[in-house]
Amino acid sequence: MNAKVLRVGVIGGGQLARMMTVPAINLGIELSVLAEQPGSSAALATTMVGDYTQIEVAREFANTVDVITFDHEHVPLAVLEALEADGVSVQPPSKALAFAQNKLHMRQRLGALGLPMPAWAEIQSAVALDAFIAENGGEAILKTPIGGYDGKGVRVVRSSADASDWLENIGNFGGSLLAEEKVDFVRELAQLSARRLSGESKPWPLVQTIQENGVCSVVLAPAPEVSAETLQRTADIASAVAEAIGVTGVLAVEMFEARDGRILINELAMRPHNSGHFSIEGSVTSQFEQHLRAVLDLPLGSTAPRATHSVMVNLLGVDDSNNFVQAFDKALAAHPEAKIHTYGKGARAGRKMGHVTVVADDAAHALAQAKGAAAVLLQG
Amino acid sequence: MNAKVLRVGVIGGGQLARMMTVPAINLGIELSVLAEQPGSSAALATTMVGDYTQIEVAREFANTVDVITFDHEHVPLAVLEALEADGVSVQPPSKALAFAQNKLHMRQRLGALGLPMPAWAEIQSAVALDAFIAENGGEAILKTPIGGYDGKGVRVVRSSADASDWLENIGNFGGSLLAEEKVDFVRELAQLSARRLSGESKPWPLVQTIQENGVCSVVLAPAPEVSAETLQRTADIASAVAEAIGVTGVLAVEMFEARDGRILINELAMRPHNSGHFSIEGSVTSQFEQHLRAVLDLPLGSTAPRATHSVMVNLLGVDDSNNFVQAFDKALAAHPEAKIHTYGKGARAGRKMGHVTVVADDAAHALAQAKGAAAVLLQG
Repeated sequence: MNAKVLRVGVIGGGQLARMMTVPAINLGIELSVLAEQPGSSAALATTMVGDYTQIEVAREFANTVDVITFDHEHVPLAVLEALEADGVSVQPPSKALAFAQNKLHMRQRLGALGLPMPAWAEIQSAVALDAFIAENGGEAILKTPIGGYDGKGVRVVRSSADASDWLENIGNFGGSLLAEEKVDFVRELAQLSARRLSGESKPWPLVQTIQENGVCSVVLAPAPEVSAETLQRTADIASAVAEAIGVTGVLAVEMFEARDGRILINELAMRPHNSGHFSIEGSVTSQFEQHLRAVLDLPLGSTAPRATHSVMVNLLGVDDSNNFVQAFDKALAAHPEAKIHTYGKGARAGRKMGHVTVVADDAAHALAQAKGAAAVLLQG
Repeated sequence: MNAKVLRVGVIGGGQLARMMTVPAINLGIELSVLAEQPGSSAALATTMVGDYTQIEVAREFANTVDVITFDHEHVPLAVLEALEADGVSVQPPSKALAFAQNKLHMRQRLGALGLPMPAWAEIQSAVALDAFIAENGGEAILKTPIGGYDGKGVRVVRSSADASDWLENIGNFGGSLLAEEKVDFVRELAQLSARRLSGESKPWPLVQTIQENGVCSVVLAPAPEVSAETLQRTADIASAVAEAIGVTGVLAVEMFEARDGRILINELAMRPHNSGHFSIEGSVTSQFEQHLRAVLDLPLGSTAPRATHSVMVNLLGVDDSNNFVQAFDKALAAHPEAKIHTYGKGARAGRKMGHVTVVADDAAHALAQAKGAAAVLLQG
């Protein structure tokens, strides 16, 4: 008799694919990665290097696995739909990913569901943008609908003149931009959950995310001092999104807590997410293990915390030589509780190259230890 | 400038090498494995397949890494000594491993240190064995000095006739066997610790190991209801062994708690050990991460528990088809806290093919959940 083997294929060789490798090894799941190039963060599990925008490349890769999932949201819908037409299990499916790929479609869909969002408008002209800015207090957030991440494809505008380059080449963006109210928020929150194909869904505790220059810098799990009402509303919003959109795997719903008390959906990610890295050490089941379980339609694990507080601090590249390994000696000596992660990427200023997590029953201690270890590593 | 890379080479492609891969991915250490054959448990990190008993094979592998360590203790001393003569960092070094490889040398060395052991004797004849049996209550444990593990190379004897096959071929065992007192023990304990090259050492909490048919079945961490005196004695024994023998990396000291109260050293292992698998989820720093840190001479991590109790249950093969993956659905549904590990090995009765750990503040709950999940997986 043949023993059963579970095979997951990940398109994209970034740090999320890398971190999925860990629970695959633990559980005994065969994880394969289709990477963009050799020597990626997920090189260890890479079984194929190729261009995922080519249907034949994706098809060849899909033939080697039981289910296809993703390190990022950039696989063209036409490729995903072709795989689905072949009978491949694509998780999350193309119909869900469509909303993660296009921020305008996401706003339209969430609007149809009556979910709370910043004021927004589809912008096709300078006149329309100036009108939106005027209606929204003299400034707006302007986004390219497709392809932005970590502050890229996003800018604050006070006049259509601030976006003349985008407006003049609007055809490059599918003919439309997305304008959004610049929310006066007191903080940003993220609700992470996972949903398996057959419907079971489990959330992690609500977290607070702290951004610097549009990039996630610190995550506090759970989010401190959240009212019972806010906890209920954020949970309801996240579960409404997951069910309505038919997400499978991990879903991150990033939200603003506005100064006027409103909870407004900012962005969605349909994959393991930076706001969930704390769960590797901080939860009974990490987001990476849960994602594999969810896309394989296996029962989901407990998302209970391992300790009262987890703090995650990102390690962003400082230059082209510090890959954070050279200061391991100092950082590990000074911070014996810190769990240091580096992603095997070449050093580059601003690049997400690793993170540090500390799990503790005391929130201030966890924060100080995580920030302390990160500071030592950043010094190199 | 070139960014720093830390490269660890592991000789042997078993589950211990596999489980070292996880902290290597997390930290960003390049782990390479020299495996005996393709398709081993550690296939993902295997960079070379070859015969580690051949000096040239070991040398070629060593040229690709910064430090050599081990999945098992079977690498011939001559090979290790040749690498050391080349200037290769071998951790633990050959002078320490010599005692793990030969149980007779280990008894001699521990005896010279005055450490507590069962009565023992080097046996070279039937007459000597019968005399030892007579002096020790009519029975003894007889061991081959080299190569035994998991109950192999060990038998209970009541007369030299029970070992006539070994005695007649004593040349195969280097001319000597090891006879030991059959200790009337109330339980078995194991003290795991790690020691880095420059001397820093950290223990995990003392654990109780429960064996079935000579193979580890269950580990309770910490060992329940241990007197302060026993805790002190086991800690002292383990630290004396580590320092005297010059171990680097993880050291497991297996001990008997005898009915008369004596603590007696049973076996030593100089590598991550089955008694420490609980630490993957149960400790801030797992034995696999600590081993990598220790052999790279990096500062050791905290060995504090993540929760009050951890219970590990081994998954031993039941037949040639159940690799434990087919019952994931049932086991994960019934036991959402259970952390299931399978090692990617072909199914075979009695083989160590995986384990389950549950970490909880309630000991009975952890034991029931871990045993429950294992029972479902064993049913297939």
